Amino acid sequence: MKCTRCREPAEVQLRAHNSAFCRPCFLFFFKRQVERAIAHEHMFTQAERLLVCVSGGKDSLALWDVLADMGYDTTGLYLGLGIGEYSDESHAKVEKFATSRGLPLRVIALESEAAGMAVPEVARFTRRPACAACGTMKRHYFDTAAFEGGFDVLVTGHNLDDEAARLMGNVLRWQRDYLARQRPVLAPTHPKFVRKVKPLYLTSEYETAVYAFMRRIDYIVDECPNAAGATQLIYKDTLNRLEAASPGTKMAFVKEFLRTAQPAFAEVDRQEPRECTRCGMPAYGELCSFCNLVRAVESKRRPAAAGASA
Amino acid sequence: MKCTRCREPAEVQLRAHNSAFCRPCFLFFFKRQVERAIAHEHMFTQAERLLVCVSGGKDSLALWDVLADMGYDTTGLYLGLGIGEYSDESHAKVEKFATSRGLPLRVIALESEAAGMAVPEVARFTRRPACAACGTMKRHYFDTAAFEGGFDVLVTGHNLDDEAARLMGNVLRWQRDYLARQRPVLAPTHPKFVRKVKPLYLTSEYETAVYAFMRRIDYIVDECPNAAGATQLIYKDTLNRLEAASPGTKMAFVKEFLRTAQPAFAEVDRQEPRECTRCGMPAYGELCSFCNLVRAVESKRRPAAAGASA
Repeated sequence: MKCTRCREPAEVQLRAHNSAFCRPCFLFFFKRQVERAIAHEHMFTQAERLLVCVSGGKDSLALWDVLADMGYDTTGLYLGLGIGEYSDESHAKVEKFATSRGLPLRVIALESEAAGMAVPEVARFTRRPACAACGTMKRHYFDTAAFEGGFDVLVTGHNLDDEAARLMGNVLRWQRDYLARQRPVLAPTHPKFVRKVKPLYLTSEYETAVYAFMRRIDYIVDECPNAAGATQLIYKDTLNRLEAASPGTKMAFVKEFLRTAQPAFAEVDRQEPRECTRCGMPAYGELCSFCNLVRAVESKRRPAAAGASA
Repeated sequence: MKCTRCREPAEVQLRAHNSAFCRPCFLFFFKRQVERAIAHEHMFTQAERLLVCVSGGKDSLALWDVLADMGYDTTGLYLGLGIGEYSDESHAKVEKFATSRGLPLRVIALESEAAGMAVPEVARFTRRPACAACGTMKRHYFDTAAFEGGFDVLVTGHNLDDEAARLMGNVLRWQRDYLARQRPVLAPTHPKFVRKVKPLYLTSEYETAVYAFMRRIDYIVDECPNAAGATQLIYKDTLNRLEAASPGTKMAFVKEFLRTAQPAFAEVDRQEPRECTRCGMPAYGELCSFCNLVRAVESKRRPAAAGASA
C-alpha cells in the first residue's frame, strides 16, 4: 500500500477517506483536517485566548498538541474528578505533557472547591448516574474557569466517534432540543458564557490515536471506570459495525446532519438564560443545574452528619 | 412468568411492552394493536375495498389473516417476481393460505406481463442492485393493480423492524426527501394512485412470527436470496442489538420520529406527478421509473438478440 500523497510506503489506511498515508503525510493530513474544521466553522483566530479542556486521554492531548503546534494561544484546563486511580493517573499524564512542552496548565480538583464534592460522592448522594452528575459538574467548572480566566473560547476534544454516538442517541429518541444544539461551534447565549468549539468533530478516534502514537504523546489508555457499559459505548460499537460495512458512514451521518437536518431543529425556540441566584452563572431556572446538584448533596449530607454525631 | 392480562402462565414475553401473554391474550393484544394503528392513523374503514400485498412471508400473511378476521373487505395481491425456487415456494404458500380461508387472490407473474421481465433479468440488464429494481417493479404493479381493480387502499405488511431499519438508513444519510415520505399512511398524490397504508408499522417482526405460529399460518421462512448481505439486514441487526440493550428502542425511534421530527421534513416541497407518456401511470419525469427500467432493458436486449442471431 502506497501513500496517497507521496507514493512512499504507507503506514496508515483511512478507509473513510479512501486514503493511505506514510508518517509525515499522515501528520500533515491530520493537521490540515483540524485547520479546515477551524477555518470552515470560524472557530477561533490566532488573536484569541483558548482554554483547552484536557482529560489526559488521546483526543484532548492530541488536540492541545496540534493547536500549540499551529501557534494558537492555548492554556490547558484539567479537572480532578476524584475518580480514584483513574483521576490520579490522568492528572499525572496531563502535568507531564504540559511540562514537557512548556504549556500553561490550570488544575481544578473538585474535592478542594467550594462545594467540596467529587463525582463519586455526588452520584451516590443524588442517586444520579455518575456520567450525568459528572457532565453537569464538568460544564459548570469549564464555564466558570473560562469566564473568570477571561478566555475567548472553550475548546474540547470531542471527536467524530463522540459526535456520531451522541447524534445516534439523540436521533433514537428524537430529542429535538439536543439536536437543536448539537453543533461544532456554540455561540455564547449569555455574557458569562464563552464560545464552545470542537475542532476534532470530523476526526475519528482512530486518527487521533494514530496521531498521538506518532507524536509520542503519553496518554491514559483506560476508559473512565464509570463509562463501562455506558449507552454511549453501545452506540459507538454500533456505529463501528456500520462503518466497517460501509466506510464513511460516521462522517456522512454527522456532516449531512449538520448540513441538511440540523437547521430544521435549530429553529426550536429556546429561552435566554438568567443568572443562578447562588453562583451567579447562567441558569434556566432559579438555580443552575450545578447548584441544584450541590443543594441535593447538601440536603443528604446534613442528616447523615447529624445521624453520625447522635 | 404470568400473563399480564389474565395471570395465567404466559407463553410470550414482550420486553418492549413490558408485558407477557398467554396464547389467547397475545392474540387479543396483537389484534388490538393492529386495530389501534388503523383507527389512530385513519387508515381505512369497513366500507372500503383493500388490496393486501402478500409475499408469502409471515408479515403479509399475518396481516391478511387479522384483517379478514376483523371483517374487512380484503383481496390478496401476489407478484411472481421470477426469483427461482423462492418465488415458486412463496406463490404456493399464498395460494394455499387464500384457498384455505376462501379469500380472493390476484396473481401477477412479472414474466407474463407486457414487459415480460422478471427481477433477475432486469437487475442483470440494468446493472442495478436486484432489490432496487425489484422495488421499482413492485411499486408499479401494486399501483396499477390497485387502480385498475378499483380498490380504495393498498395495504402492505411492513412491520416495526422494517420501518425502523428504513428510518435508520434514511437518517444515516439524512435523506430529507425519503424522511418526508416515511409515514404509515400515504395519501394519494394523483388520481391514479390510491392510499397506501402499513397497519403493522408498530408491530415487531417477533410479534408477527408469534402470531403466525399461534394461528398456524404456513409461510415461507427463507429470506429472499437477493436480500443476503443487504444493507437493510445490517440495519436490522444493529437495531436488534440496541433493542436488546434497551427494550423499546425501535418503537420509540419510529414513534417519536413520526411525532416530533417527521413534520419538519414533510414540509419539503415536492412537485405533483404528471402522467407517464408510456404507461399512463403517475410519473415525475416523462417516463415513470418502471418504464425507465423497461426501456433500459429493451435497449440492452435488442443488440444482444441481434448479436445472437448474427
